[in-house]
Amino acid sequence: MSAASASVGLRVRIVGTGLIGASLGIALSRLGFRVSLDDPSPTAAAIAHDLGGGVLAADTVKAPDVVVVAAPPDVVADVVAAELSQWPDAVVTDTASVKGAVLTALQDTGADLSRYVGSHPMAGREKSGAMAAQGDLFEGRSWVVAPGPQASAGAVDMVRQIAEAAGSVVLIMTPDDHDAAVAAVSHVPQIAASLVASRLRDLPSGAVALSGQGIRDVTRIAASDPAMWTQILAGNAPAVRGVLEPLARELDAVLVALRRLESDPDGGTASARAVLARIVAHGNAGHALIPGKHGAAPTTYATVIVVVPDEPGALGRLLRDVGEAGVNMEDLHIEHEIGQPFGLAELSVLPAAVQPLISALGSLGWPVHE
Amino acid sequence: MSAASASVGLRVRIVGTGLIGASLGIALSRLGFRVSLDDPSPTAAAIAHDLGGGVLAADTVKAPDVVVVAAPPDVVADVVAAELSQWPDAVVTDTASVKGAVLTALQDTGADLSRYVGSHPMAGREKSGAMAAQGDLFEGRSWVVAPGPQASAGAVDMVRQIAEAAGSVVLIMTPDDHDAAVAAVSHVPQIAASLVASRLRDLPSGAVALSGQGIRDVTRIAASDPAMWTQILAGNAPAVRGVLEPLARELDAVLVALRRLESDPDGGTASARAVLARIVAHGNAGHALIPGKHGAAPTTYATVIVVVPDEPGALGRLLRDVGEAGVNMEDLHIEHEIGQPFGLAELSVLPAAVQPLISALGSLGWPVHE
Repeated sequence: MSAASASVGLRVRIVGTGLIGASLGIALSRLGFRVSLDDPSPTAAAIAHDLGGGVLAADTVKAPDVVVVAAPPDVVADVVAAELSQWPDAVVTDTASVKGAVLTALQDTGADLSRYVGSHPMAGREKSGAMAAQGDLFEGRSWVVAPGPQASAGAVDMVRQIAEAAGSVVLIMTPDDHDAAVAAVSHVPQIAASLVASRLRDLPSGAVALSGQGIRDVTRIAASDPAMWTQILAGNAPAVRGVLEPLARELDAVLVALRRLESDPDGGTASARAVLARIVAHGNAGHALIPGKHGAAPTTYATVIVVVPDEPGALGRLLRDVGEAGVNMEDLHIEHEIGQPFGLAELSVLPAAVQPLISALGSLGWPVHE
Repeated sequence: MSAASASVGLRVRIVGTGLIGASLGIALSRLGFRVSLDDPSPTAAAIAHDLGGGVLAADTVKAPDVVVVAAPPDVVADVVAAELSQWPDAVVTDTASVKGAVLTALQDTGADLSRYVGSHPMAGREKSGAMAAQGDLFEGRSWVVAPGPQASAGAVDMVRQIAEAAGSVVLIMTPDDHDAAVAAVSHVPQIAASLVASRLRDLPSGAVALSGQGIRDVTRIAASDPAMWTQILAGNAPAVRGVLEPLARELDAVLVALRRLESDPDGGTASARAVLARIVAHGNAGHALIPGKHGAAPTTYATVIVVVPDEPGALGRLLRDVGEAGVNMEDLHIEHEIGQPFGLAELSVLPAAVQPLISALGSLGWPVHE
């Protein structure tokens, strides 16, 4: 019997029926959990109810087994404390994207923290609110379960069952490790992307036309919402600073090296070059830590480039042909050059697949090269 | 008559038959240009000749109309000066990736700079050397032509014809504008990607498993070769520093704001939050300057997400179905989550295409949502 089926029938109270809360209600209700919905906005709760997210809390008689607090970050700790107090037998979790601050705030309240287990579903959409809810929001996404030192094993297991029932892959880590991890893999990359994109504003008109795939990749997330990111960064300030400070020190070392190379471009600059080489090599090492597909060990993929006409279906035909060649593509980038009626598709495949793929595509008339 | 056909028959001397020189020789020879090849390494010149890149310089009788210097960056200026002196009627260009330093070095030599026009083909491969040469290397790529103040209009036009004949799209800009542009769109993004990836080395084991598409995009180019990038960054040190210094100042402002938010998380931090919001908003503005497909004005695309099983051909079937729905996909990202036998394909399309695409894919059984 799977964890999910064992927990069906549990009474789950969801407090806060925005995107996350309403989506979770829909997912769990479909599976047979008995979900009740509460929200300071009766309209939000009613929408979640209408979407199949569960019954309204006002219509609920029995006490919940689990409470999921999916409230805005600034009120999460207060709501969790109130729920722990109101339901003395329930396990309480929250879904805020920063975990250390919530736990610290709760430790000051004297609440029973053996029943509290913070968590963070790594799921979201560009839209927010109950209207945007969908039952498959958590499908295949990571969901961090981050118990504090006082959390009971039973409480941890209960939260894990909820996350797995929603279709997520559970990762257990401490609140501090979680916060450091999201700072490094999400918050600091956002800042870096914003800072790099920001500099394009200084370029003379037209010069930005030299943009290739590199800058497009580095700055893709720079299009994110400033108000949302201000909240996220402010909420995880200590952990973000913990990653950003050593980064700033390395950046200063790069600047010192560049200045030395300018003043003495030909000789005596071996140490300056060594600084630049070390920075890029450290980047290699960090990049190699990012897990490959499905959490497998990182693999080095080889690249095959195909010229694709810019017309509906052309890319589909290409990828159908790739599939019929029996080759599993690991990733795909499309590069559009200025003024050309075609794009370059960069297919990442296992090195052993390169030659078979080139032969297969070449025989079908695709302009292809390594 | 196109520029390319007008210039067919021109005598082109290529000095340096590595990847760029040999590829250019192949491209131009195919079109009927009379190409001669020279290289300090007779083997490299012989390989380029065997690949169809042109005749060997030793077998050439007549003086060239155009000389293309495709030598390593540290010797480019000396080789250009020697060629200008050796061929008093020829136009000379080079293909080095930094333009200001070459021009400055030439200005000290007393060479005839009316016949020199620096250029930079934005093409390359992961492999180098004549063996990796291919005639379509420049096809659809940008090629910057960067004349100094003394260059004659005729010389600029001659270099433009060579670049266009090779299949490139020519962009004319000053050497300084070119160097600032590549610093901002290529060199500084590389440094940022390396610095962000480098920080992953500090994470506790397993925490890097939280990596999503954002960090993957930001750090994709962090896998680049340290030795090559040390040369590139050192060669463009002043322009890189010119972009990196204001970036470092903005980073310092972020750190100051984060510290203020930590010391006073609840009140009196409006100005700190404003700093964070401004950084992200400036990133929005810079990101919006990056040209859309084919140099058109940037467009905001909408996203459709489809769950794709991880098996050969699945993505091809999806994209064939997208094509048959008459929808032109602008971009595609594939997200792989830990431990799941499927991926999430994120299709970027014009906003008006979202609902038709969702209907079409949904009716074919694809799990799809906005």
